[in-house]
Amino acid sequence: MSETVYDFRSDNVGGVAPELLEAIVAANVRTAAPYGDDEFTRGMNARFRAAFEHDVTAFPIATGTGANGIALAGLANPYGAIYCHETAHINVYECGAPELFTGAKLVGLAGEGYKLQAAALDEALALAGRGNATRVQPFALNLTQPTDFGTLYSVPELRDLSEVAHRHGLLVHLDGARFANAIAALGCTPAEMTWRAGIDVVSFGATKNGAMNAEAVLVFDPAVAARVPFLMKRGGQVVSKARFLSAQLERYLADDRWLDRARRSNANAARLARRLQAIPGVELSGKVEINMLFARLPEAAVAALDCGPFRYYKLGREQRFVCRHDQEPAGMELLVTTVERALA
Amino acid sequence: MSETVYDFRSDNVGGVAPELLEAIVAANVRTAAPYGDDEFTRGMNARFRAAFEHDVTAFPIATGTGANGIALAGLANPYGAIYCHETAHINVYECGAPELFTGAKLVGLAGEGYKLQAAALDEALALAGRGNATRVQPFALNLTQPTDFGTLYSVPELRDLSEVAHRHGLLVHLDGARFANAIAALGCTPAEMTWRAGIDVVSFGATKNGAMNAEAVLVFDPAVAARVPFLMKRGGQVVSKARFLSAQLERYLADDRWLDRARRSNANAARLARRLQAIPGVELSGKVEINMLFARLPEAAVAALDCGPFRYYKLGREQRFVCRHDQEPAGMELLVTTVERALA
Amino acid sequence: MSETVYDFRSDNVGGVAPELLEAIVAANVRTAAPYGDDEFTRGMNARFRAAFEHDVTAFPIATGTGANGIALAGLANPYGAIYCHETAHINVYECGAPELFTGAKLVGLAGEGYKLQAAALDEALALAGRGNATRVQPFALNLTQPTDFGTLYSVPELRDLSEVAHRHGLLVHLDGARFANAIAALGCTPAEMTWRAGIDVVSFGATKNGAMNAEAVLVFDPAVAARVPFLMKRGGQVVSKARFLSAQLERYLADDRWLDRARRSNANAARLARRLQAIPGVELSGKVEINMLFARLPEAAVAALDCGPFRYYKLGREQRFVCRHDQEPAGMELLVTTVERALA
Amino acid sequence: MSETVYDFRSDNVGGVAPELLEAIVAANVRTAAPYGDDEFTRGMNARFRAAFEHDVTAFPIATGTGANGIALAGLANPYGAIYCHETAHINVYECGAPELFTGAKLVGLAGEGYKLQAAALDEALALAGRGNATRVQPFALNLTQPTDFGTLYSVPELRDLSEVAHRHGLLVHLDGARFANAIAALGCTPAEMTWRAGIDVVSFGATKNGAMNAEAVLVFDPAVAARVPFLMKRGGQVVSKARFLSAQLERYLADDRWLDRARRSNANAARLARRLQAIPGVELSGKVEINMLFARLPEAAVAALDCGPFRYYKLGREQRFVCRHDQEPAGMELLVTTVERALA
Repeated sequence: MSETVYDFRSDNVGGVAPELLEAIVAANVRTAAPYGDDEFTRGMNARFRAAFEHDVTAFPIATGTGANGIALAGLANPYGAIYCHETAHINVYECGAPELFTGAKLVGLAGEGYKLQAAALDEALALAGRGNATRVQPFALNLTQPTDFGTLYSVPELRDLSEVAHRHGLLVHLDGARFANAIAALGCTPAEMTWRAGIDVVSFGATKNGAMNAEAVLVFDPAVAARVPFLMKRGGQVVSKARFLSAQLERYLADDRWLDRARRSNANAARLARRLQAIPGVELSGKVEINMLFARLPEAAVAALDCGPFRYYKLGREQRFVCRHDQEPAGMELLVTTVERALA
Repeated sequence: MSETVYDFRSDNVGGVAPELLEAIVAANVRTAAPYGDDEFTRGMNARFRAAFEHDVTAFPIATGTGANGIALAGLANPYGAIYCHETAHINVYECGAPELFTGAKLVGLAGEGYKLQAAALDEALALAGRGNATRVQPFALNLTQPTDFGTLYSVPELRDLSEVAHRHGLLVHLDGARFANAIAALGCTPAEMTWRAGIDVVSFGATKNGAMNAEAVLVFDPAVAARVPFLMKRGGQVVSKARFLSAQLERYLADDRWLDRARRSNANAARLARRLQAIPGVELSGKVEINMLFARLPEAAVAALDCGPFRYYKLGREQRFVCRHDQEPAGMELLVTTVERALA
Repeated sequence: MSETVYDFRSDNVGGVAPELLEAIVAANVRTAAPYGDDEFTRGMNARFRAAFEHDVTAFPIATGTGANGIALAGLANPYGAIYCHETAHINVYECGAPELFTGAKLVGLAGEGYKLQAAALDEALALAGRGNATRVQPFALNLTQPTDFGTLYSVPELRDLSEVAHRHGLLVHLDGARFANAIAALGCTPAEMTWRAGIDVVSFGATKNGAMNAEAVLVFDPAVAARVPFLMKRGGQVVSKARFLSAQLERYLADDRWLDRARRSNANAARLARRLQAIPGVELSGKVEINMLFARLPEAAVAALDCGPFRYYKLGREQRFVCRHDQEPAGMELLVTTVERALA
Repeated sequence: MSETVYDFRSDNVGGVAPELLEAIVAANVRTAAPYGDDEFTRGMNARFRAAFEHDVTAFPIATGTGANGIALAGLANPYGAIYCHETAHINVYECGAPELFTGAKLVGLAGEGYKLQAAALDEALALAGRGNATRVQPFALNLTQPTDFGTLYSVPELRDLSEVAHRHGLLVHLDGARFANAIAALGCTPAEMTWRAGIDVVSFGATKNGAMNAEAVLVFDPAVAARVPFLMKRGGQVVSKARFLSAQLERYLADDRWLDRARRSNANAARLARRLQAIPGVELSGKVEINMLFARLPEAAVAALDCGPFRYYKLGREQRFVCRHDQEPAGMELLVTTVERALA
């Protein structure tokens, strides 16, 4: 425990941002009604309305998988299908949670860069058998922004995909576990990346960017929002002392620190990528758009890293490195020089 | 916000105990693997093993409803029934969560004092149609200890009920949202109230006794425990930065402060009950066993309370008052005198 | 196999009525589109519209449990509750099928004569917590007509219950596994016992009255009917060669033979009841309203019956005798004399 | 209705074979216990044991979708995955029924000829994340034999796929909606195509080959079979007068007529394919292995067919023709000459 470890596994290995911890401590006064009927949750909602320039409703939830399940359940019908990329987080890494919460079937489509393409979606939905009782009926499109593989939809891409989805009668869910990294990278506003681009519900992630198990489901349609409290209770997603999530999220949106952290995370990854790329023998997989990079390092480099004080994930023959806003410069430097030496 | 309010609604309106907040702050160092694969969760498990004198496995969960759903799902079969009291929390106040997590049907039985009786359970299970394919097959017994109405099973009662359940092929779940209050009231050990009494899985609540959204599912059978991580992920119950729950629970069990708080809560309710009972015209419903009391106040008293700085719940013609460990003495005093004056 | 057995177990031990077998044979010509898109199903729908004096939609289904599940699923929401009598068929004898098809929770209420009472229902629904997110939200009322215990709701009783249900926002499902017996006993029209009394969907049973595994879900609201084909496919309830169910149901409604059979079944039970009642020592449980009777025979009589060529069910200390339209007179006579001799 | 139509839509547009109708009529004597506890169901089981050379248990079910759902539910765990071809019937044409009955996620894999390949399956299962709690855990492999597109697995292919599945801890389900056509085409025994090839459960279809809504779930493992009656009831799949399904299936297996019919169906399709193929401009999609063929006819030919007395399905730019055992020779001749003339 005492030795230094440089951790590139994921951004959720990081701690809690100081101002969010302060918000928690500050919320620990007096009594507050449980289950979200409190002033902190009302304050959080005001912040979300301001930040999103919309009369949105925000529900605090402790897990990203819970947020995705609830967001999608709000749109579901009992013989429905959710269209998503075949590599979408909800399709691969949630152990069937979206299916449990919605009762729906997930239909995964292929697509370059781990992203759906509007034309391919249009074609798939045209063949989905709308009205044919042997076929599940599509009701939602899931877009993971950014994807689990660090790629980003541009705002026009989001808009085109939403347009196709709406034309076929689907509503659109944006899984924004790394919402801040996407905003930081695209340089757009939350409104531009969501409802102005046709997004109907959002899983707004804050945990990977400094919060302590605090996410929010954002619902732009009040009729859907009215059903969410029931779905949350049924899904075991209503935290008792909701104020400690809401107070964090209120503080999170109160100034630009959330964006600063995301920008620093992204910049760390970009810098690490530049350095690694410069090493002969190192190959990166795709460009680095947010705070994660995938490499195909030669075996000697992998072996060298595995002897060092590094933690990172291997996916087949690729290595994934995720950078936090507070990634240690010494650790990044040591990682680069370790690879350099191994390949010299 | 600025005026003083005396809050008797529930124990979860309270804040976080200082030492648990300290544990959170202390856990906010370095990086830690997400999803419970961290030193804090291992430390918490060690504490639970010591406190329960058993090689138990503990899973941190942010909500009590989630804990109940996961605990029961670990025992479920797809055409199963969970037997419980008709007023059990899982049967009435979880909006169908146990059914969602387990796929099972809940069968509620009547019973004095909001408690199941062993003989009645035995009779009901004998008529449940074991092996008859038109009938759901019982697999679990749920015992809420203490009940939502403040009553307690004695250890022999728990033992008798477990014996009946086991004899009929059921496993036993103890919903211990107020686990500490029960232990404090009964003066027994955690082991005596659980596995030594035949309990198979426990929802161990800490939030109502000072924690910040931290509960644990306790599983005494390793074969069941092996399935829980999958059920938790599928249920959206795996918190990303689990260390902040585990660190609390580790600290919670580290000394007697959790029991001290529970004893004070119970004592506050007992004292309030004695004072109210002494007022002519006041009738309490049942004896006060833990930290909540139910009264049938005359209308004049209710009207007087509603004009004062009090918060409490009404259930039909009854009034519920729940006491926290840090219930303000001035508030309790004012409540008593308000009732006295109204009925004078 | 060769010896004569007198079978009082249930009406579904009987065979298929000659005219329905003829309808099956007559439908076995040419080809027909599968899954209900055929002339026989259209013909059946015309008959139901005429018989029910309503532009109803009828869906052929092979099992009563399937029909109940689909009928209720058409009304369900994902955090819903179905209110029913605690002894309702759907609550006790369908191994969780209604829960599987609807995702809902069943809430069983007590009531004399195995029947719900309007006032008690009103009170229960007033306490159901409409709008309270910790509580499942009632969406349907299930009425079993006749009940599994041979009792009947009068048309005014049905009307009162429907009125209460509608006032609280519930739709009403009538489980008519023995629909014909109820019509025959009440002497009313199908319209009077269903939509004119406020019923929204019906499980119309024909199998217990002479059909070969042919029931129908009847839906009076076209918006609900539009969802049923999907729910049926998802529930594995769409028979491939639907014409062989539809042709039966078309023929079933074509003249009064279905009612004649039901009247004879009812009359057989009434006659058997009169004869048994006249024997000193025999006690019947309740009056006989349709084709089943419950008795509390002395042990000597039970022992004598068990030595004879009789089949019937025992429920605790009661004995159930169900009469078919073609119940053998000799069998009924022998049953009576066997009891007489045993008690002489 | 009176004009002649030549129907190539599917084999389930056909009627009921004379000997099966006779079996139904013959079963319509005396009374029989409902729900499968009758001599006809026992007789059917004896026939299946003989035909499959195994102490198999057979459950009569009215729909193919129901049979698939029950067969798979018998194997399921609550966080499980069923691997299948991406075009599998259960994955595309059952409106989510397998998911409802099992609670599992379907994972569709690509594969030439609408068939899974053992090597690709092995690779996919190696990457499925066994033991990783973020991933659904594979428990079943579904093989559709023949596929919905008329292709066949050879017995060695079945064996290889089962071997891979078993090695990874999966059990194997064979969806045999056209079981007879596969047996007729392969010239193997039922045992060779099922349990001897490693198949664990079978949906045995008879409806498409002359039965009246009669399929069977076949279970080779008694421990799984013990759970099936509960799953069937919960799924609304227990027909009341089961004898009328069982009597058909008993008769179906009693001699070679079922195979004769399947051989004639296959031969009709082969003959039609030869004739069409000989016409310049006609292109068939793949070889014809059972009783269905897919063509890509020029527009002129399609237009000509659409003016004639033909019924068939179009799938995108392909046309599907399914032949029954009693396909009218005149209809096949007219179809061929209509295409010839249109393309002359």
